Amino acid sequence: MIMQKLIKNLIQKNNSKIILVVLDGLGGLPVNGKTELEAATTPNLDKLARESACGLHIPVDVGITPGSGPGHFALFGYDPVECQIGRGILEALGLRLDVRKTDVTVRCNYATIRDGLIIDRRAGRIPTDQSRKLTEKLQAAIKKIDDAELIFAPGMEHRFAVMLRFPEPLEKDAAAINDTDPQLEGKPPLPPSPLTKNAERASRVAEKLVNAVHEVLKNEKQANYILMRGFSVKPDLPTFQEAFGLKAIAIATYPMYGGLAKLVDMDTPVVSGTVSDEIDFLRKNYNDYDFFFLHVKKIDSYGEDGNFAEKAARISEFDALLPQILDLKPDVLMITGDHSTPAIMKGHSWHPVPFLLKSPYVLGGLCNAFSERECFKGELGLLQTVKLMPLALAHAKRLKKFGA
Amino acid sequence: MIMQKLIKNLIQKNNSKIILVVLDGLGGLPVNGKTELEAATTPNLDKLARESACGLHIPVDVGITPGSGPGHFALFGYDPVECQIGRGILEALGLRLDVRKTDVTVRCNYATIRDGLIIDRRAGRIPTDQSRKLTEKLQAAIKKIDDAELIFAPGMEHRFAVMLRFPEPLEKDAAAINDTDPQLEGKPPLPPSPLTKNAERASRVAEKLVNAVHEVLKNEKQANYILMRGFSVKPDLPTFQEAFGLKAIAIATYPMYGGLAKLVDMDTPVVSGTVSDEIDFLRKNYNDYDFFFLHVKKIDSYGEDGNFAEKAARISEFDALLPQILDLKPDVLMITGDHSTPAIMKGHSWHPVPFLLKSPYVLGGLCNAFSERECFKGELGLLQTVKLMPLALAHAKRLKKFGA
Repeated sequence: MIMQKLIKNLIQKNNSKIILVVLDGLGGLPVNGKTELEAATTPNLDKLARESACGLHIPVDVGITPGSGPGHFALFGYDPVECQIGRGILEALGLRLDVRKTDVTVRCNYATIRDGLIIDRRAGRIPTDQSRKLTEKLQAAIKKIDDAELIFAPGMEHRFAVMLRFPEPLEKDAAAINDTDPQLEGKPPLPPSPLTKNAERASRVAEKLVNAVHEVLKNEKQANYILMRGFSVKPDLPTFQEAFGLKAIAIATYPMYGGLAKLVDMDTPVVSGTVSDEIDFLRKNYNDYDFFFLHVKKIDSYGEDGNFAEKAARISEFDALLPQILDLKPDVLMITGDHSTPAIMKGHSWHPVPFLLKSPYVLGGLCNAFSERECFKGELGLLQTVKLMPLALAHAKRLKKFGA
Repeated sequence: MIMQKLIKNLIQKNNSKIILVVLDGLGGLPVNGKTELEAATTPNLDKLARESACGLHIPVDVGITPGSGPGHFALFGYDPVECQIGRGILEALGLRLDVRKTDVTVRCNYATIRDGLIIDRRAGRIPTDQSRKLTEKLQAAIKKIDDAELIFAPGMEHRFAVMLRFPEPLEKDAAAINDTDPQLEGKPPLPPSPLTKNAERASRVAEKLVNAVHEVLKNEKQANYILMRGFSVKPDLPTFQEAFGLKAIAIATYPMYGGLAKLVDMDTPVVSGTVSDEIDFLRKNYNDYDFFFLHVKKIDSYGEDGNFAEKAARISEFDALLPQILDLKPDVLMITGDHSTPAIMKGHSWHPVPFLLKSPYVLGGLCNAFSERECFKGELGLLQTVKLMPLALAHAKRLKKFGA
């Protein structure tokens, strides 16, 4: 945070444009000697890497595998350990809920209860359609408890989210409430107990909500109860504009990523379609912003599925579109991922993420291609992800000199 | 500061000699594919790099462009964020003032005031000669206010510095006084208001000083007033001898750099002439010190001018003199810059600075030349500038083992 204060004092404005392309889950590991990025066909990325500053970044710390929240916060220039966000928030963002400072957000499961004991923590994984209908029924029946407005958002299968919206902004420990999910079947649900004085108010609402829901659902065979996890309030962060003096837009088709950007007050219009559509959207909005966060999801999705070939294909697909971004001639272009998702691991990993930065003020000439192994030869070395924003600001000439 | 305490406890003395050569503003960026250092003729530096430990250092942090103060403090082994020095101090050092713990130092502009409003913040940029005469007149007329002795130092054009020298050492917030410069013409000057209780005393002197000066200058057409900025006291730092157990000398022809060394109590004799003269001076004093800070200014000056060819030529010039330094056979020789000054940027920049360290205890063999790009291949990697002093001490066998 000392550095964030220091940077805030050095900010100066100009008309430069910064584009951050996040190829979600970009980093990988070799299969038959080549990583996904090495196996992909990337003539444009390779050429760009030869004339860019390259390196690899570490989102949280050596050996720490980041979730999407910490990965993106670090890219946005916020310390991902200091700025942790609750699971409830992440779930709500993914369901396009507009999370405010007045809200306690909770992720919920439908469950089956009998004689006071949870006999199925996921209500038989009821179909999404049926779950949606139940959630709409709850919303119709339960609109307010005490002074909290209730906002339900249907999710996939047995999952949904609920927000308790209070009349005024909440203390940061207002959602310090334990999960009601006992994590084992055959046990009774736990009460939503407050862990601090400030959490008592939301705890009372949550307790009444569980009972009200049960009253509505008591005749359902499977989904006759709810379990609540990850009570959270919106983190108290400086906005991106306050922190870096940039007017920013998020271009992301998956709601959660726009949602993360919204937590720091980037503009987050609804964007749909392909990566090509996202780049069209970027082009159309190019005159109206200083900073563009463009998120490409599918690379990570195939990594998570363990589908090496498709992950590589999605990287090749992006490479073919890259000239359209270069045509905009941004002052600073950064291309990287929020974390690694090696297909052989079928999930996020702790491995440093390859990164390139193009601007007129780089050495370049150190890497022959854009890949994990080539980036280790680059002029940025291994650095913490949270340092990328100051670096981008410097290259955009948006930071004054420190000290006389 | 934790590391500085740790190192202090590990210090041991011996007869080793350490030379730190600072080629001011050394780091650069390519023009037609080569940086200034790559374009320069540097057979001696290249040979030395092949047998040295090489790397690049970051003075403050990623993306942060350091001023000369932070750049040098970091090289001297002091945390440049913790040890910030005021503009007033830096100005005074550049004018060869001997700044003590009893002094409040201020940088001043001559200005033109009419009917209580500043109509020219720089008094028409009066010639240096005329400014010098006015400053001497002020010194003759105003010797003491309250218990503060006044010490004036003429500068270039409309600039000068003044020190308020009190009878005893001051609190560290004794100069927490706002600037009197309103930064806009057509406005009245601001009073030098104290921001803390401890600053009230110097504030009273400053207020009386402004009036006394106006009384002396009231009949001048242009320079009939002064504006004061950057009120500062000497930072409270451990001396270089206390911190590292080294008797040190600064060899610098530009007063500000000797001044920075003086803030940590290095000996700072007046040195003039060429780089060759500086090396002669080094040779003559070689038996009397443990640590030699040799500062080469012109490389930075041409970088600031945007003169790529002359910056490279100054590097070549130093290279030709390097054998004279090597002939002294120092136990540890470090050659680097305090920051980068790429000619294409015409100013300081945030780019890591190439660095080599010669001692009997290096791996070597990793770099083919001394350049930004070759240093990335070196055994020191990318490191914070403040780590160079501990490294030098280690190579000089001046640090004991840590822990059993």
